[in-house]
Amino acid sequence: MNTILEALLSRRSVKPKHLTQPVPDFETLKLAAQAALRAPDHGALVPFRFILIREEDRAHLADLFEASAIRLGYDDEKVQRTRSKALKGPMLVAFVTRIDPHHRIPAVEQELTAGAAIAQFLLAIDALGFGAITLSGSILEDPELQSAFCLDANESLAGWFTIGTPDESTQKLPETREAPISVWQP
Amino acid sequence: MNTILEALLSRRSVKPKHLTQPVPDFETLKLAAQAALRAPDHGALVPFRFILIREEDRAHLADLFEASAIRLGYDDEKVQRTRSKALKGPMLVAFVTRIDPHHRIPAVEQELTAGAAIAQFLLAIDALGFGAITLSGSILEDPELQSAFCLDANESLAGWFTIGTPDESTQKLPETREAPISVWQP
Repeated sequence: MNTILEALLSRRSVKPKHLTQPVPDFETLKLAAQAALRAPDHGALVPFRFILIREEDRAHLADLFEASAIRLGYDDEKVQRTRSKALKGPMLVAFVTRIDPHHRIPAVEQELTAGAAIAQFLLAIDALGFGAITLSGSILEDPELQSAFCLDANESLAGWFTIGTPDESTQKLPETREAPISVWQP
Repeated sequence: MNTILEALLSRRSVKPKHLTQPVPDFETLKLAAQAALRAPDHGALVPFRFILIREEDRAHLADLFEASAIRLGYDDEKVQRTRSKALKGPMLVAFVTRIDPHHRIPAVEQELTAGAAIAQFLLAIDALGFGAITLSGSILEDPELQSAFCLDANESLAGWFTIGTPDESTQKLPETREAPISVWQP
């Protein structure tokens, strides 16, 4: 089987606790973000962007997560767990979608492009020798957290990537589920 | 640069007129659909599926496209153009999303997974020696066309892939746009 197909069929997310140093430098992240630009993108709208959170800003992000969790009415234990998410894993990159109204290209098609961009980005991160996981969570519902990353109401903080070097426990298992494909019966 | 990164940075859609025979067999399509399963998929919901339209059913699909175009009030010229879309290119595969309500995973996150599945599928098709393009169009707004592919109201026909072998005119150009990444300024 060829290298690319093998990479596709064995792609996996790596949990933050299994991600270690080193992390990609900014030039490497740029390559992965460029790979994301090659997602199928009707009208070349680029309805997404990536935002690196510097190491020195993660404590501030933890404060924002905590404040969001409190606003959303979480109990103390969940507030602390939410806070800790900003500090887990060696590197954090936020993912923002930008869905501008378009006369021909519906919002859902732009969301699919943003999703395809995520896959291209993650595959590039893997190909560059690193590993990652996409994370989300109900704190994304908090408008104040959203406004810390988004330029206007058309942008949404959709989640973030934790990135690093997979530790030795990380195994690549082949896909065994049945392929989700059938033949049309009109 | 490594093979996988190169494939990601040069991925491109191939227009139907530049797609020729041969087309992938069903086993090959199944491999690509399995690759789609490796998209990041919170909760392993698999919010998507692929449907091959057999060659002998494309005339019937053209009738459906035409009927949709008429219902949507298109002029004669656009009705004929819409009809012809069902007949263009060597192979058609429909893409259906399935967004079931979930207590923890919002619809938009499931849409992103479906988009990531598209990227994984297209990259696998390329890696297997073929080429493809994702197509959509305003006829997707027609509920009767939707019901010809969808099992219930949670499913949506999101578009289709035209697949074949790229002709000699197809060039792989490197990505030159600036990477859509910045550093967070809290």
